[in-house]
Amino acid sequence: MAAVVALDGFGAERGFDVLAEGARQAAAGGIRLRVFGPPGELRLDDVDGVEVVPTEEWISNEEEPAAAVRTRPEASIVRAAHDVSEGNAGALASVGSTGAAMAAATFGIRRLQGVQRPALAAVLPLPGRQVLFLDVGANVEVRAQHLIQFAFLGAAFSEAVLGVASPKVGLLSVGEESGKGTPVVVEAHAALAAAEGIDFVGNVEGVDLPAAVADVVITDGFTGNVALKLMEGTAKVVSGAIRDAARSNLIAAAGGLLMRPALGGIRKEFAPDTTGGAVLLGLRSPTVVGHGSSGPEGIANAVRLAARCIEQHAVERTGDLLRSGHATRGDLARPDGSAERIEA
Amino acid sequence: MAAVVALDGFGAERGFDVLAEGARQAAAGGIRLRVFGPPGELRLDDVDGVEVVPTEEWISNEEEPAAAVRTRPEASIVRAAHDVSEGNAGALASVGSTGAAMAAATFGIRRLQGVQRPALAAVLPLPGRQVLFLDVGANVEVRAQHLIQFAFLGAAFSEAVLGVASPKVGLLSVGEESGKGTPVVVEAHAALAAAEGIDFVGNVEGVDLPAAVADVVITDGFTGNVALKLMEGTAKVVSGAIRDAARSNLIAAAGGLLMRPALGGIRKEFAPDTTGGAVLLGLRSPTVVGHGSSGPEGIANAVRLAARCIEQHAVERTGDLLRSGHATRGDLARPDGSAERIEA
Repeated sequence: MAAVVALDGFGAERGFDVLAEGARQAAAGGIRLRVFGPPGELRLDDVDGVEVVPTEEWISNEEEPAAAVRTRPEASIVRAAHDVSEGNAGALASVGSTGAAMAAATFGIRRLQGVQRPALAAVLPLPGRQVLFLDVGANVEVRAQHLIQFAFLGAAFSEAVLGVASPKVGLLSVGEESGKGTPVVVEAHAALAAAEGIDFVGNVEGVDLPAAVADVVITDGFTGNVALKLMEGTAKVVSGAIRDAARSNLIAAAGGLLMRPALGGIRKEFAPDTTGGAVLLGLRSPTVVGHGSSGPEGIANAVRLAARCIEQHAVERTGDLLRSGHATRGDLARPDGSAERIEA
Repeated sequence: MAAVVALDGFGAERGFDVLAEGARQAAAGGIRLRVFGPPGELRLDDVDGVEVVPTEEWISNEEEPAAAVRTRPEASIVRAAHDVSEGNAGALASVGSTGAAMAAATFGIRRLQGVQRPALAAVLPLPGRQVLFLDVGANVEVRAQHLIQFAFLGAAFSEAVLGVASPKVGLLSVGEESGKGTPVVVEAHAALAAAEGIDFVGNVEGVDLPAAVADVVITDGFTGNVALKLMEGTAKVVSGAIRDAARSNLIAAAGGLLMRPALGGIRKEFAPDTTGGAVLLGLRSPTVVGHGSSGPEGIANAVRLAARCIEQHAVERTGDLLRSGHATRGDLARPDGSAERIEA
């Protein structure tokens, strides 16, 4: 049976046409979609595998996410999350407000047993190798035990969805030595070094993050969000400088023309659209948060990533790893073994 | 009278010859140097303006900085810092262990009145515009009042040494809104928005840091260290990808050859050597920490930056701004107005 993805029909900065085109592209690959938005604007009636669930309300970037999600049950992202928790769809995807998507998913979808804090994970847009980086914004402050959970959540996702066998997990810090970093980082380092069921490679410095020395790199949501956006900004400034250099004189301009096809490939590799967006890990159904500025391809990739999570049984395999990891027994599960649900 | 800089003669990864050549280049520009290292290795006897103070002991990157500085008064960086506090030199420069240089300076040189935590500031290697970024590693954990001090220290340095009139100061966070970030960041935002004597432009996101939307950007030493090294790493990966692209086929290779002179300029602009290193702000004498991997030009630039701090009266002007800024009266100065000295 084809994977079913609930897609927020609002929030695409480039408009309903672009969102609809992304949905069309994803559906063409065999994914079934339930799109929550205005049917008249989306004009997706004729598309095989796409069902539009008429929705007129939505939550914008300007609203306080948790409050908006709590008070507006008719908003598209809230209805889409509810659709997932009802079992009509297997995963949630949105390119709207990241905060609203996280809040709707956290409130509406149950957490995996033992998970205290879901974390937002992004695949870094790097040439050649995929690095899963989390948390990139769900928790601006963390305790050591949360970082340890992120390590297990990230490793499980890397293995299940990205296909990395025995992923190497690193901890972002200000030096390689185990004593470097904040007290929380130092405590997490010691616990991860002693944990079984995970290949912990130690601290990773900022300079090594883009060099892909680990398959999974964990950090708090403040540092992770700053770092992810900084990589994007730095790549932009560097490529802008190259473009300017290619315009600086005629000889360089001729060189730029000859290099253009090769450079185009680089631009694509560093573009956030290529990876489809970030995934909220730790819930019983996958949630993918794409970029609001995405084109059709970026939106289709967000939906494809959500579908891949379903097809690869990402959640089940994450749950298995959490249960099998020795660290989880002591640190993660509640004493009675029950799962928790955050009430909205 | 020429500025006198005390230079650690140890710690250059590329050896004594490279360090000596950097000293020679700086001295050729009229700066006087006192170099703490082995005279036989440095071979600087014949150089006008350079005095070698024979020193055989040094602190390596592998040692715990604070402990090493406390227990080894004969180490080159400790003697150099002492030389500054004795008034024989006006500033300290080192390309050795950053931790040891910070510890030696913090223990050996008095803090400016009212400053609780010296901060390490780096000029980001960006094309076109200079952004002063701090703290990049002196304080892995901060309180809001420390971030506020960093804002004033950074603004004063930007004005005095970098020549920016009324520098715009931004606070690194995960969103532009005043409520975004950790509780410490939110508290600092509110205080800076209300502070007089500073042009606070609000939160700056990671993506905007390389875009130079502010002249000074402040953050804690953990995030700042990760971010600075990440920019370096990202620029490396992007330029590596461009090099690979230029080798991917003959046409691209021809283009790469034609662009090489223009691209060389970019490499130089993004190279950390160009800016000379980071400056420890908040002490009564400037301390510059350069890169251990520097070539002669990078070492000369570290010394030149230290000399420029002396010539521009960076410390005096920083002190003036700290006293005049309204925020300092309430938050920074001790009740009795006295200066503090950290005892080693």
